[in-house]
Amino acid sequence: MTSVPETATTAIADLRRRLNMLSDLGNATALLHWDMETQMPPDAARVRGLQMASLDGLRHELFTGAETRSLLMAAEAQGQRGETQGSELEADLLRVTRRDFDKATKLPTHFVEALSQAQSDAHHAWIQARAGNDFAHFAPFLERILGLKRQYTELMGYQDHPYDALLDDYEPGIKTAQVRAIFADLRERTLPLLRRIVAAGDAGDYTVLTRLFPAQAQREVSLRIAAEAFGLLPGFSRLDVSAHPFQTNFSADDLRITTRFDEHYFPMSLFGTWHETGHAMYEHGVGRDLERTPLSSGASLGVHESQSRLFENLLGRSRAFWQRYFPEVAAAAPEMAAGQSAESIYRAVNRVQPSLIRVEADEVTYNFHIMLRFEIELELIEGKLEVAGLPAAWNARMQEYLGVTPPSDTEGVLQDIHWSSGLMGYFPTYSLGNLLSAQLMEAARREPAIAAEIDRAEYGLLREWLRVNVHQYGRRRTPGQIAEEATGQPLNADAYVKYLEGKYGDIYRLE
Amino acid sequence: MTSVPETATTAIADLRRRLNMLSDLGNATALLHWDMETQMPPDAARVRGLQMASLDGLRHELFTGAETRSLLMAAEAQGQRGETQGSELEADLLRVTRRDFDKATKLPTHFVEALSQAQSDAHHAWIQARAGNDFAHFAPFLERILGLKRQYTELMGYQDHPYDALLDDYEPGIKTAQVRAIFADLRERTLPLLRRIVAAGDAGDYTVLTRLFPAQAQREVSLRIAAEAFGLLPGFSRLDVSAHPFQTNFSADDLRITTRFDEHYFPMSLFGTWHETGHAMYEHGVGRDLERTPLSSGASLGVHESQSRLFENLLGRSRAFWQRYFPEVAAAAPEMAAGQSAESIYRAVNRVQPSLIRVEADEVTYNFHIMLRFEIELELIEGKLEVAGLPAAWNARMQEYLGVTPPSDTEGVLQDIHWSSGLMGYFPTYSLGNLLSAQLMEAARREPAIAAEIDRAEYGLLREWLRVNVHQYGRRRTPGQIAEEATGQPLNADAYVKYLEGKYGDIYRLE
Repeated sequence: MTSVPETATTAIADLRRRLNMLSDLGNATALLHWDMETQMPPDAARVRGLQMASLDGLRHELFTGAETRSLLMAAEAQGQRGETQGSELEADLLRVTRRDFDKATKLPTHFVEALSQAQSDAHHAWIQARAGNDFAHFAPFLERILGLKRQYTELMGYQDHPYDALLDDYEPGIKTAQVRAIFADLRERTLPLLRRIVAAGDAGDYTVLTRLFPAQAQREVSLRIAAEAFGLLPGFSRLDVSAHPFQTNFSADDLRITTRFDEHYFPMSLFGTWHETGHAMYEHGVGRDLERTPLSSGASLGVHESQSRLFENLLGRSRAFWQRYFPEVAAAAPEMAAGQSAESIYRAVNRVQPSLIRVEADEVTYNFHIMLRFEIELELIEGKLEVAGLPAAWNARMQEYLGVTPPSDTEGVLQDIHWSSGLMGYFPTYSLGNLLSAQLMEAARREPAIAAEIDRAEYGLLREWLRVNVHQYGRRRTPGQIAEEATGQPLNADAYVKYLEGKYGDIYRLE
Repeated sequence: MTSVPETATTAIADLRRRLNMLSDLGNATALLHWDMETQMPPDAARVRGLQMASLDGLRHELFTGAETRSLLMAAEAQGQRGETQGSELEADLLRVTRRDFDKATKLPTHFVEALSQAQSDAHHAWIQARAGNDFAHFAPFLERILGLKRQYTELMGYQDHPYDALLDDYEPGIKTAQVRAIFADLRERTLPLLRRIVAAGDAGDYTVLTRLFPAQAQREVSLRIAAEAFGLLPGFSRLDVSAHPFQTNFSADDLRITTRFDEHYFPMSLFGTWHETGHAMYEHGVGRDLERTPLSSGASLGVHESQSRLFENLLGRSRAFWQRYFPEVAAAAPEMAAGQSAESIYRAVNRVQPSLIRVEADEVTYNFHIMLRFEIELELIEGKLEVAGLPAAWNARMQEYLGVTPPSDTEGVLQDIHWSSGLMGYFPTYSLGNLLSAQLMEAARREPAIAAEIDRAEYGLLREWLRVNVHQYGRRRTPGQIAEEATGQPLNADAYVKYLEGKYGDIYRLE
């Protein structure tokens, strides 16, 4: 390596210092949000909203302003002159920062403000519309969001399809055509499976799920298992209660997950906690050399979801898991466990049933809820579907895929918060995460020692495999690169379909 | 009023928007701190320290930078041209902002960094020195702090005494000479009182204070009384546990207080909680028109302490209070209350006893701990005392004022965190707060309806009087103005001396 002039390291170091500060500002804003959802006294809400908006604005201003621009350009010039330490990490940092910078600077302030206002208005209208089963009330607000989202795709630019620009915010590098192809394959191979399960009939007894399981016992046992099985330790994490469960974190050793307790429906908090544990352990596994930089978080929503679903479903809803942990859960809730067994709980928490609500859906039906939303979003963006036609389009697809028709829009097209918050292009990441979870699991199990551990419901080697192949990279690799390099294949539905066929073929005794 | 040009309101409004953002940034940093002390998982500490330092630096940079300067100058020019709405609030905002700005810009960055580093080093050295009773280990670090503090007084400037520049950070407008005179008067009038109390002897039985009082019961009863008596409601506040109790807040309706529980020494959490409640209710009473501006907090540490001491001591340690609340406290802790009465608890929580540790001192001896520290700080700043001579100077004064000599420096000169954190000029505010608490109480009681309520341990009218005469102004008035306008007198020791003589003359049956 040629000698590096004194000024050389300075440009990257200066940029990195500024990115550190911007990361700190973002994490402080995340803390304001976590605190709002879990700790804050209610009267503080109005000012808290102003504070969060103000710091979001400040961060955007500081990131897109002249100082960051010139630091970034100086660092890039230094990189191009070959004067850096030449580390891959520096190259990755420059590439991702440039990507974020270019995206952030494409949006004029007046557009950001208009979108923010439209989202705020639409969110309030959605709450009212959902409460009153009144889609017509929400429609004009959604029209406005849709118009702005179309405008957004033009501002951002795209090559093949305007929806690519929306997807790219959540799943960098993934294209609409690719999602379309993967979903078509998934639909074609799992719809027959679902129909066979429904045809097989279901004589199971699921009343165990609604038996009393005290909240404190749910909390203790779910956290104890999260620690032992999944590695979530109190030294770097905590669990709180919030209306809508989520995971957030302010550094790789400061993980916050939330849940809610229903004493007569324990799967909500148990599987919810293990789901959020998957998200948290991803953030915990990000390399410490990426600390306080834009690289220090998960690669995408889809990769994140692959980790939460892997812990929640592929492990937490496995037979081996319940064989190992049933005694512990039973000891925590004797009333619930009376007359039950590992096998009976395993069956109960894996019931397949076409239903109306996405967040309550099982592993087999869940993806149909997502495909439906993806198809509708595409038609909206392409202008093939009018907002007014949404309820009919929704209900028709629900009937087609799941054989059920929502008795009301509240239980149909109005059920999700996403569109009212301007989130379009987001839903597909849930299913991409499901698919990737099985694809990663299949790849990890190719190592016999890992497979043997998993079959004993021990996950130390699996977690280390995930850390090395997924977590450590943070945002240094794209979701596509992670899938290819960890599993040897591009993201696809094969592993997930095989997983569903094996598991539910057994449970429902299909031929 | 003459017509206001279009540009006129803009300058003040622009400045105010920037001050809002700086306030939001400060409150976010305060939340990082609160979270660190009360919620954060331990492994997060290292990065949290970096985050807080980074955001403190950002705020300083944004406040002292060119943009704030030009916004401030434009707003001031507009004010001088008489083009503002002419409101007093705007004038106050400009005056206080200018004061803060001038102080903040007097310190070169390298000085701020050197002080920050010296404080961090000294703090660690102090922890070791205190643990090992090794003043010599701490001495060189304190030398460095002292040198920087002397330099600080030169950078800030002063008219009469360098210590004025230190005092001014915590008690704007108060001068060394004034504190010296007030303390001399206080010493002269309360040292004889203390000697008479000690001479009277004390046959009281204080074992009740160490009887079992379960932590949860302490929490519930102290909060219930804080709500009923002092107005601290869960809608805008919460209580958490921390190693060192404190109050912080992120808006006037987002108050956080902390305490710690000793099941065998209930006064710590009960009086501690009511103390922090006094701080919190001060912030709650600040005018909502000052929201998210530099005016929106207490006027000074001394005025703050007057509110906490008023609730904790003048109300919480009063006979009327215990006559009213003894049954409630007794019901919460039957084991503690067995054979006790309102009067016996009143006596127990008002025991006077010269002792070594400031934070455990009673109302009569507390101020001597402060005077001692004030005198030593003056001698250090004036160069009359060397750091090496501190333990001897400390012990001599302890003997002179309180008749006790610390058996170790750990229980003597090393007991407080303040000097290791660079806090000099801070201690006097504790006593100034004590004096002001009595002065305000005396003024409020001049209204017969208020006095009648207080004598029944009802504080609604008193709290409203405090809100109107103290709280609402935030930083719009100086501590001196608040004392003068609320009580008709400059801050002085009269009311406090009278209060001590009346209360303890009765308890100790002095002639």
